[in-house]
Amino acid sequence: MQTLNVDLGERSYPIYIGRDLLSQSKLIEPYVVGHQVMIVSNETIAPLYLEKVVATFSQYKVHTVILPDGEQYKSLDIVKMIYDALLENRFERKCTLVALGGGVIGDMTGFAAATYQRGVPFIQIPTTLLAQVDSSVGGKTGVNHELGKNMIGAFHQPRCVIADIETLDTLDDRQLSAGIAEIIKYGLIRDASFFDWLEANMQKLLDRDAAALGYAIKRSCENKAEIVAQDEQEGGIRAILNLGHTFGHAIEASTGYGSWLHGEAVGVGMLMAGDLSQRMSMLNASDVQRIDNIVDSALLPTRSPSNMGYDSFMKYMSVDKKVEAGAIRFVLLKAIGQAVITSAYDQDCLQQTIEAHHANS
Amino acid sequence: MQTLNVDLGERSYPIYIGRDLLSQSKLIEPYVVGHQVMIVSNETIAPLYLEKVVATFSQYKVHTVILPDGEQYKSLDIVKMIYDALLENRFERKCTLVALGGGVIGDMTGFAAATYQRGVPFIQIPTTLLAQVDSSVGGKTGVNHELGKNMIGAFHQPRCVIADIETLDTLDDRQLSAGIAEIIKYGLIRDASFFDWLEANMQKLLDRDAAALGYAIKRSCENKAEIVAQDEQEGGIRAILNLGHTFGHAIEASTGYGSWLHGEAVGVGMLMAGDLSQRMSMLNASDVQRIDNIVDSALLPTRSPSNMGYDSFMKYMSVDKKVEAGAIRFVLLKAIGQAVITSAYDQDCLQQTIEAHHANS
Repeated sequence: MQTLNVDLGERSYPIYIGRDLLSQSKLIEPYVVGHQVMIVSNETIAPLYLEKVVATFSQYKVHTVILPDGEQYKSLDIVKMIYDALLENRFERKCTLVALGGGVIGDMTGFAAATYQRGVPFIQIPTTLLAQVDSSVGGKTGVNHELGKNMIGAFHQPRCVIADIETLDTLDDRQLSAGIAEIIKYGLIRDASFFDWLEANMQKLLDRDAAALGYAIKRSCENKAEIVAQDEQEGGIRAILNLGHTFGHAIEASTGYGSWLHGEAVGVGMLMAGDLSQRMSMLNASDVQRIDNIVDSALLPTRSPSNMGYDSFMKYMSVDKKVEAGAIRFVLLKAIGQAVITSAYDQDCLQQTIEAHHANS
Repeated sequence: MQTLNVDLGERSYPIYIGRDLLSQSKLIEPYVVGHQVMIVSNETIAPLYLEKVVATFSQYKVHTVILPDGEQYKSLDIVKMIYDALLENRFERKCTLVALGGGVIGDMTGFAAATYQRGVPFIQIPTTLLAQVDSSVGGKTGVNHELGKNMIGAFHQPRCVIADIETLDTLDDRQLSAGIAEIIKYGLIRDASFFDWLEANMQKLLDRDAAALGYAIKRSCENKAEIVAQDEQEGGIRAILNLGHTFGHAIEASTGYGSWLHGEAVGVGMLMAGDLSQRMSMLNASDVQRIDNIVDSALLPTRSPSNMGYDSFMKYMSVDKKVEAGAIRFVLLKAIGQAVITSAYDQDCLQQTIEAHHANS
């Protein structure tokens, strides 16, 4: 087992990464507050791991709530199912919520924890690669609105993160690739040597080699923890974590959430960000080629949806959280490992980027 | 105009109290962030003051959203109307929400501000006495759940509070008395000399004497600001502000929200807290009599709803936010001006208190 720390003063917390962590009561107990525990999971994950996790919390009064699975259910209406379960079972302010699942479960459970009785503790037990390397760390919680991704939410840090690599054994291939997209992101924005490693080890990750996955998860979490410690509420540098997300969120919102996985949309988004960086004369052609190659080698889609043109991208990107004074802000690249945040993009270049990545182009 | 400060470090903010403040652009402008302003009001207040307030923000891009009026609309579903308006009008993270109305509008606008794009600035313009002396100050935001009052929410401090006493001219008598209930509360929990003043000046408050109202609002806000500065997130002492609220919230939840005004329920709740304190041998009979007299003199109800017995109180009080390790915590009184928070209450005394204040008893 490896342990990292997210350094946020009194809100600091550990990330545990290893195998067979789900059943380690002694590891988790120090992070439980009160005597009531609500485990939130979904219809896919619960049959696989819920019984095991319930047993881990057996010394507490445990309740569970099982949500439907998929990004299309990341909504206020579904969060209300968590509130209902908490109130029907008379959960007090001193209680602990546990998110057992992927990013959608983590985001919704975290938001319920942020807002139930104005804030209660929660623990993240991410069971997808994407959640283990990205969404379970850093305290972003929330839900989608029909008009925009993650538009309703709060910053609320977990008490700890338990990343059990064994849970990846049951992950389907699309979800695995979606997680790899966020791993690639860390290499692109700030860790060129990790990007080199990923180029050399992509097949091992796709083969679910335990050592390779463990290293990739740890290196990703280290990168994320360092950025979050510098800028918890995204006043500045944290925004580089959104590489590919402005394009990606537009794809997810326009397709109605759920048909594209978040990591798949981010994968295409990173290609588009690389392409736009090149058109803006910031990034050289060989780096763009490396980005194209690695996204392709991760078995991620490389084209945006066929029914999504320039106007559609502009409609959704203009309500992105990074819009400021009417201008979309993009995370672009000066080199592999070097990101910049800018609203000084050229509109023609942007249109060309969108059109060049269209599924029909 | 008088100015108080709520001292919360980098989240500190001023409360301005006076007449004709609604139209003072120069006063408000320093607290506006960005160029987009969303004014949230309700169907009762908007016809009276919205035009004036829109004009005050005329140098910004102003949008408005008008919600139905009443505690029964303080729900997630209605907050969604605010999110919809923000997203339909492409509000960015750098924007300002303005709550123009009573406590319900303030709580919902504050919650929308706490959660839109994970947190945006907001300004409180309270137009009821209750909101001016209590709910607009201190950063508690949120909505009700069918099973409990204010069960979903967040702490989110406003950028400033503008309490324009002129708006009280249009307040109906029930709302005026409801606000006085919270004013009495400050005397009871920590300010015996203010309680003396209230006994001597109750008729002036009911007559809407400007000087008396101004003094009562200022003194109330001073008390609240001092408590909130000591304990922003209610880890301890702030809970004394909930005197009468455990009983009161049960009345509001049991009657379905809206038929009883919050201040009316708190008024009865304070009587019950005084009665329970006496039965527990903490408070003497003459102080209890003074509490009964002042609540009665404020033209507030002094009996709980006729259909609400012991079991009904227990059902709703057991999901109160102050419940800890299964025990209800009450704010009780040792003297006028001296509150204690305790879960060491006697169940028989509690039952007697509830039955003694029943409308049929």
